[in-house]
Amino acid sequence: MPKSLDVVAIGNAIVDVIARIDEAFLTTHGVERGAMTLIDAERAQSLYAAMPPGVEVSGGSAGNTAAGLAALGGRAGYVGKVRDDVLGQVFSHDITAQGVRFDTAPAMDGPPTARCLVLVTPDAQRSMNTYLGACVNLTPEDVDPAAISEAQVVYLEGYLWDPPQAKEAFLKAAKIAHESGGKVALSLSDPFCVGRHRAEFLELVRHHVDILFANEQEIVSLFEAKDFDEALQKVRFEVETAALTRSERGSVVVHRDEVHILDAEKATRVVDTTGAGDLYAAGFLYGYTQGKDAATCGRLGGLCAAEIISHIGARPEVDLKKLVATQLG
Amino acid sequence: MPKSLDVVAIGNAIVDVIARIDEAFLTTHGVERGAMTLIDAERAQSLYAAMPPGVEVSGGSAGNTAAGLAALGGRAGYVGKVRDDVLGQVFSHDITAQGVRFDTAPAMDGPPTARCLVLVTPDAQRSMNTYLGACVNLTPEDVDPAAISEAQVVYLEGYLWDPPQAKEAFLKAAKIAHESGGKVALSLSDPFCVGRHRAEFLELVRHHVDILFANEQEIVSLFEAKDFDEALQKVRFEVETAALTRSERGSVVVHRDEVHILDAEKATRVVDTTGAGDLYAAGFLYGYTQGKDAATCGRLGGLCAAEIISHIGARPEVDLKKLVATQLG
Repeated sequence: MPKSLDVVAIGNAIVDVIARIDEAFLTTHGVERGAMTLIDAERAQSLYAAMPPGVEVSGGSAGNTAAGLAALGGRAGYVGKVRDDVLGQVFSHDITAQGVRFDTAPAMDGPPTARCLVLVTPDAQRSMNTYLGACVNLTPEDVDPAAISEAQVVYLEGYLWDPPQAKEAFLKAAKIAHESGGKVALSLSDPFCVGRHRAEFLELVRHHVDILFANEQEIVSLFEAKDFDEALQKVRFEVETAALTRSERGSVVVHRDEVHILDAEKATRVVDTTGAGDLYAAGFLYGYTQGKDAATCGRLGGLCAAEIISHIGARPEVDLKKLVATQLG
Repeated sequence: MPKSLDVVAIGNAIVDVIARIDEAFLTTHGVERGAMTLIDAERAQSLYAAMPPGVEVSGGSAGNTAAGLAALGGRAGYVGKVRDDVLGQVFSHDITAQGVRFDTAPAMDGPPTARCLVLVTPDAQRSMNTYLGACVNLTPEDVDPAAISEAQVVYLEGYLWDPPQAKEAFLKAAKIAHESGGKVALSLSDPFCVGRHRAEFLELVRHHVDILFANEQEIVSLFEAKDFDEALQKVRFEVETAALTRSERGSVVVHRDEVHILDAEKATRVVDTTGAGDLYAAGFLYGYTQGKDAATCGRLGGLCAAEIISHIGARPEVDLKKLVATQLG
């Protein structure tokens, strides 16, 4: 029976608070450059107080991917936990207005909606500081078997491994997806996240994942490889499809026996790299669920990533459908 | 029976005359930038007269590869035609002194030993102007079946397709190699050379070549592909082994089902790119004939290429054995 959704993404539902800062700010406030660092409520308060004026944009890695997929014309759903507060309403409004199906019930008590303080240095690099808030209350009960089994692909962000209960929701969704003939996709999210959960991620990749997204640092860390090629040789035999992004070196897509080397799209400008990996995944999965070949999927991913890094925020600002039209011929 | 040689290389035996010039020289004298252009005796005279003082270094693409292989400790032979003149003696002395077996009888009459006027611009790019001279007299009689059948690999430069008789020598050598259990390697040499002989090169690659060396421009030209990845998908099914060089992007090595992506060695400096491809092939074939895996062969090639571009001329200036020792463990 044909599926009514292309992709259901499951992730930490987060509102980004983005501000441009100088290098000195990172040092003064002890922020780890280029990483995603988990912070508690107190640190979130003090860091936010110190930040210059920012912009609030709905984010969250898998949320960005779902929004990108919908912007491309794909049928997307999202599962993630917000609180019934103002930021939670903002998150729900934005993702729904983008055309993404989002039915997860908000938490009525407990910590507030998650926020990520994104500090963008002049080189366009983003350093992220995440207060998980309500995300820690995502549980297997939030995963609706009917919605999952309606999707061609269930997409899971590696960051979900940080809140303790969410991994059970993750495994439940993977099981339902496979039982209903769908594919399971995983993004490794962040090299530090891989470092925190390496053994469990290897187990996941080997036994539950069909499509793996990772950047160079993440895949090298996962296999504790000496370089990219060594990691490439290992991942080929672990998953059916792997899309490995390499920043200005483009991406490498492995699909069964195929290996594609796709050079980077020339970005017109690089303003803020937040969401590059998320939108690469959106473009790739759009192609994948439309039945495109592996090389075309990788090229679509590269086009979407080039758009997202040309401005502040990880949700697209131009008509992605038009942008990718030439690749879809 | 074990072979007594690792590689026999067959090519145009050429002495390089290398001079540094400015960009204006290329325009004034109508030299095609970055290419290998064939010139006649008269043009060779007039261009040489206009050139600033240069250095003479034995060269020739396959000659450079044979010399590099010997410098690495490999057992190399060379087949190529010089005249019995001073430049011919220089060529024979240099390649023999490097430890390469070179028995081809010099021509006793006809045109003089070939020379290549190599013009190096400040960006280290070389524009080559080749007067083939005595090379046009290389014939199948110069290919000694005993010597060819003694080699693990017969290495042929694509430039050999320019002098009309040499291609017969080339095909004879390929046939002997296969009959005696050896492998046939081909370097595509130059994108313009591929353009001149595309149909014949495709036929060769499909039916006679086991190991193909090409840079990105050459392999894209061979298959008239739209980009590197499209060419990569085609070459995978045509040869057992392909080593594709991409300048600062490193190289891609395809060997049966394997695809390796090897990042470039960091060159300490780039002075003259003459011979980069030749020395990549030397390093690769040294590893290959020592039974190393495909990724190690590619890394050895990259190391040797990085050495050769750090100085004038296409013959190594440092102890290559020491240079590659770390890769050979």
